[in-house]
Amino acid sequence: MAIKILVTGGTFDKEYDEINGKLYFQNTHLPELLQLGRCRMDIEIRTLMMIDSLDMNSEDRETILSFCKKSEQEQIVITHGTDTMEITAQVLGQANLPKTIVLTGAFIPIKFGSSDGLFNLGSALAFAQTLPHGVYVAMQGKYFLWNNVRKNRSSGIFEETLNNKA
Amino acid sequence: MAIKILVTGGTFDKEYDEINGKLYFQNTHLPELLQLGRCRMDIEIRTLMMIDSLDMNSEDRETILSFCKKSEQEQIVITHGTDTMEITAQVLGQANLPKTIVLTGAFIPIKFGSSDGLFNLGSALAFAQTLPHGVYVAMQGKYFLWNNVRKNRSSGIFEETLNNKA
Amino acid sequence: MAIKILVTGGTFDKEYDEINGKLYFQNTHLPELLQLGRCRMDIEIRTLMMIDSLDMNSEDRETILSFCKKSEQEQIVITHGTDTMEITAQVLGQANLPKTIVLTGAFIPIKFGSSDGLFNLGSALAFAQTLPHGVYVAMQGKYFLWNNVRKNRSSGIFEETLNNKA
Amino acid sequence: MAIKILVTGGTFDKEYDEINGKLYFQNTHLPELLQLGRCRMDIEIRTLMMIDSLDMNSEDRETILSFCKKSEQEQIVITHGTDTMEITAQVLGQANLPKTIVLTGAFIPIKFGSSDGLFNLGSALAFAQTLPHGVYVAMQGKYFLWNNVRKNRSSGIFEETLNNKA
Repeated sequence: MAIKILVTGGTFDKEYDEINGKLYFQNTHLPELLQLGRCRMDIEIRTLMMIDSLDMNSEDRETILSFCKKSEQEQIVITHGTDTMEITAQVLGQANLPKTIVLTGAFIPIKFGSSDGLFNLGSALAFAQTLPHGVYVAMQGKYFLWNNVRKNRSSGIFEETLNNKA
Repeated sequence: MAIKILVTGGTFDKEYDEINGKLYFQNTHLPELLQLGRCRMDIEIRTLMMIDSLDMNSEDRETILSFCKKSEQEQIVITHGTDTMEITAQVLGQANLPKTIVLTGAFIPIKFGSSDGLFNLGSALAFAQTLPHGVYVAMQGKYFLWNNVRKNRSSGIFEETLNNKA
Repeated sequence: MAIKILVTGGTFDKEYDEINGKLYFQNTHLPELLQLGRCRMDIEIRTLMMIDSLDMNSEDRETILSFCKKSEQEQIVITHGTDTMEITAQVLGQANLPKTIVLTGAFIPIKFGSSDGLFNLGSALAFAQTLPHGVYVAMQGKYFLWNNVRKNRSSGIFEETLNNKA
Repeated sequence: MAIKILVTGGTFDKEYDEINGKLYFQNTHLPELLQLGRCRMDIEIRTLMMIDSLDMNSEDRETILSFCKKSEQEQIVITHGTDTMEITAQVLGQANLPKTIVLTGAFIPIKFGSSDGLFNLGSALAFAQTLPHGVYVAMQGKYFLWNNVRKNRSSGIFEETLNNKA
């Protein structure tokens, strides 16, 4: 089964600048993560942007949507900053595409060694292979439907918005 | 959703003995992996044994089967050495339990830092949540049915036994 | 031989806040680093402050100096942010204490996994045991006298100020 | 100051074979360690052999001695398995060369992520720069003279043989 990964940036791919001590973006770490995971799937990676999801605007989201539409693969994983993942999920969900689209991200940059990114990538790829068509957020081991998820800003926990019984 | 993890050892949990330079087993690293992954699922871990899967005998496999039978959770992930994972999968598969059972493992010990274990654990937990009842092997990003999988000993790749078209 | 380590913060001990994505200070990582290094020296660690060295003022430097003065150990290692390490070295150097004082730091936080901190700590402890009384900066494998060192802000390289021939 | 590093193998450079689960040697990790440490010294690396120090014979030690003799650099660091480090130190020490030679190693392979190797390398390079001519073992933060050191096989601690007061 073939899977498309669309890269948009987020904490996932942030780097640490040794000279000025600030975080910044350079290249995606997706290929090295897939190698670490000894992943043997047929995967095509496409970087659409490398931005903090707080800086993502509606035009950026249209770009993501358009790449989902024209993707040959029916299974799509999108790496995305956690702060506005739910907003992008809504834009994609309302488009009602005949595809399984899974957004995922990380709380700790890959480069910082103790990342949740590798765990989340493993689960997102699995969800993309098994869930019915629709748009989902995969974080912290769970998956959420696009119209029933939010990131709790104070606790950092992803939760359902409707029947939140964690 | 609640998930049970049954720990049996395997490369996953091997440690390096600094004094004699040999690999050995101590405690499972599953709890720290779930914490690294910021996993928020309702998970119960039970260690059944800590052995190399080349040393696993049919009695050990009966033990694993019996714990699958009596597990309250319908979703079960089993960590297991890769060398005989397919044999245990067959024992469990023939029992035809009304549960989703996913076996997973690692090629590199968790403690060696560059492990595929975190990736595989993420995918195994996701497959356990989404696949129909049955017994599966989850490795290298893919899942396989218990009666259609083998580890290629020379390449280290998991592949289908029947219609092997990767 | 007994060595005193005085902790002042710096990149060395910075942590990543998963919720707000900013760097901050919590506890020092010195004990775990010494354990990683299997260090068997008689070492006493004292945390004096946990600050970015750009925020260090002359009062802070007087505190460091006073702890150097009253240290029972003649060998002292100070962990310090790299940005103003040379200024603190000058304050300590002008005091002309009958002790060997070595300032060191890191370009990458310990917690980010790929740190130079462990390497620098190893060299700083060695320089403290072998150099004559005086104040030194130990970075990037080298040592510098307190009155002949600066951090090149654009390249991030520590270099001599007088006869700079790298 | 220029330093020569002679590589002989040892736990330092051991790798984990994913297929057969055994440890083996491939290439030295010294260059990547020096890069991790942001080392800016003038260093020349020469690999002499890649063996377990339990397999090192007197011919191998003659090879090491001969490279120490003809080294242009007066400061030499030798990476070496810990098990027979003291024997090689004796061979080199009795030659009485007008050079500072520091043997070091690791209890955990570099590739296993939690190595003491980076710490030891930092200290060995520092000792090589500051100690008078002679042959030394640098492990666990300390240095030992070639004729007064042994590895305690049961505890894994390097200690003095004469006045052993830890």
